[in-house]
Amino acid sequence: KTLKIAVIPGDGIGNEVTAEGVKVLDAFAAIKGNIQFEYTYFPWGCEYYLKTGNMMDVDGIEVLKGFDAILLGAVGYPSVADHISLHGLLLKIRQEFNQYINLRPIKLLPGAPCPLKDKGPEDIDFVVIRENVEGEYSGVGGIRFPDRPEETAIQTAVFTRKNTEKVMDYAFKVAQKRNKFNKVTNVTKSNALNYSMVFWDKIFKEIAANYPEIATETNHVDAVSMYFLQRPESFDVLVASNLFGDIITDLGAALQGGLGFAASANLNLEKEFPSMFEPVHGSAPDIKDKGMANPIAMVWTVKMMLDFLLEDEDTEAIIEAITQVLLEGKSLTPDLKGSAKTHEVGDAICEKLKGL
Amino acid sequence: KTLKIAVIPGDGIGNEVTAEGVKVLDAFAAIKGNIQFEYTYFPWGCEYYLKTGNMMDVDGIEVLKGFDAILLGAVGYPSVADHISLHGLLLKIRQEFNQYINLRPIKLLPGAPCPLKDKGPEDIDFVVIRENVEGEYSGVGGIRFPDRPEETAIQTAVFTRKNTEKVMDYAFKVAQKRNKFNKVTNVTKSNALNYSMVFWDKIFKEIAANYPEIATETNHVDAVSMYFLQRPESFDVLVASNLFGDIITDLGAALQGGLGFAASANLNLEKEFPSMFEPVHGSAPDIKDKGMANPIAMVWTVKMMLDFLLEDEDTEAIIEAITQVLLEGKSLTPDLKGSAKTHEVGDAICEKLKGL
Ligand SMILES: CC(C)[C@H](C(=O)O)[C@@H](O)C(=O)O
Ligand SMILES: CC(C)[C@H](C(=O)O)[C@@H](O)C(=O)O
Repeated sequence: KTLKIAVIPGDGIGNEVTAEGVKVLDAFAAIKGNIQFEYTYFPWGCEYYLKTGNMMDVDGIEVLKGFDAILLGAVGYPSVADHISLHGLLLKIRQEFNQYINLRPIKLLPGAPCPLKDKGPEDIDFVVIRENVEGEYSGVGGIRFPDRPEETAIQTAVFTRKNTEKVMDYAFKVAQKRNKFNKVTNVTKSNALNYSMVFWDKIFKEIAANYPEIATETNHVDAVSMYFLQRPESFDVLVASNLFGDIITDLGAALQGGLGFAASANLNLEKEFPSMFEPVHGSAPDIKDKGMANPIAMVWTVKMMLDFLLEDEDTEAIIEAITQVLLEGKSLTPDLKGSAKTHEVGDAICEKLKGL
Repeated sequence: KTLKIAVIPGDGIGNEVTAEGVKVLDAFAAIKGNIQFEYTYFPWGCEYYLKTGNMMDVDGIEVLKGFDAILLGAVGYPSVADHISLHGLLLKIRQEFNQYINLRPIKLLPGAPCPLKDKGPEDIDFVVIRENVEGEYSGVGGIRFPDRPEETAIQTAVFTRKNTEKVMDYAFKVAQKRNKFNKVTNVTKSNALNYSMVFWDKIFKEIAANYPEIATETNHVDAVSMYFLQRPESFDVLVASNLFGDIITDLGAALQGGLGFAASANLNLEKEFPSMFEPVHGSAPDIKDKGMANPIAMVWTVKMMLDFLLEDEDTEAIIEAITQVLLEGKSLTPDLKGSAKTHEVGDAICEKLKGL
């Protein structure tokens, strides 16, 4: 089986980490024997924008439709405004390909540094299902009376029933499959956001009624942030809006050892369009081309890509290989107080993988 | 000098903690000699709502205008929907009295439990200035096609130049006065919220230009949440929207030992209307009337009230008294692994205060 992967290394450290992701994909394919990957590279991103005026080719979305998946490195560059670079590439792909699920595992691997005093890998193991195409990120709004004293900015969050239902439903399905508490935590703020989040809670209740065997809990996003520090062990699956999911998954990244460990999948579950896989970290232009970037988030991300593309393959060996490298402590990047280069970490993971 | 305080104990543990706040106010007045407080109690809240159909009297706002300040315990009750109780009292007072600043100190006192491994009181000491009357909490929006498949919920955040300027300006003034880095961190999400937060950043830049001696930094709210765990020592003053301020101050509360330590002031700086002082914790109905509530947040809150009402009084002795009680470890509530009752903690703080 040949899988066609569109690779967009993007900006900053995107190139370096993407190379390690591809390395691990190839190592995995070599072990399995019956799959292979065909990569097509796209030089899109901020440098492309500075040259062409576009973050991606004008027919970019059309071109990407032909692929089984998209592997994205990172987007962002100091001289290009964030809302331009992101709306031109990352957010554009999420929305055009209706990748309405953003799946983000928060799991502290043995050997990874946790900032919390009394918590360890047994306490930090949950997953956030983030709505990924609408809500606060709908891009609706405007500025009235620009630069005048009466200037007013408005930003409108739009939530549709159909999409919200699908996101919640997926959260319950994930809770069914996970071997933890079979519990979904609804992340809301309906005590203040009197339309959107009251609606969100209503849909949550409706969908929950279809899964009587799944436990539920509803907490405001401010409380959830606090609970991440106080009782992370109480979470199993969380479902959150686009913005709230963004915030709590960065917080989750801190719990699991930093952005060097934060992987994500942008999924179109029906596979009408390709899904996109990207580490949560940004382009980190300050350490570009220094071989300092931690590729673990990207390796974890390709594991998620494999899970989505090859539903019946067991990919846990990749996490096991990362864990072995962490525990051995010899091949770690500077964020983990090591002195290994990005590619050395990738090599070490591949070597462990072959031994498993 | 007599100060007229409207006391709204509210729901759940509101009564218990408010009593300790009043106790400390009186102890403070007794020490100073030249000030006294005149309290008027209002039985408003959810029980009032269940009896009368209103969270507060219909002329409540008019009545409150006659006071120098409002001391609020907590609002919320299981049988009353949050958006009803909060919009009927807490959020109503904030907005009607144009308390556009929500000031929240995040400071880890010696003896308070911090969940972070390598951080102590010297690392956690900053203050969040939260916009408090508009933005995401404007209450603008609606539901189209309720309960039909096409159902759509919209929630609109409204930011005005005048209010945003005042909030930012206050943040810079606070940074001038604090003895730390003289730095303001702008909490944004302009990479995704393409109108409101792009506007927010613009106003931040404009106001920053008036304070060339104050350092600035702009970070997205997701990153700020992560940095709270990774480098809390880097913060001095943060300025955030209503929603972002809500989230990061709960996170901050976790850093400083939990909601038992989180104080807040809702300020109308021009004193056109009374300001309101409230601990950040909720009504915690599960521990109501058990004497288990930690009154430290409330005591800290009355300290903030004194700071606002009596600009030239030194109130640090109250924090010092709390710290002594914490370090002594004899009079602590169950959340701090002690077995003292709420009123015993209040007594202990007053006793220390008299000794200072
Ligand atoms: C870069 C930014 C627009 C993006 C987001 O907010 O979704 C990022 O923070 C993420 O979490 O993927
Ligand atoms: C109760 C709720 C509406 C309130 C808020 O979100 O402002 C609370 O969380 C707070 O922080 O004061």
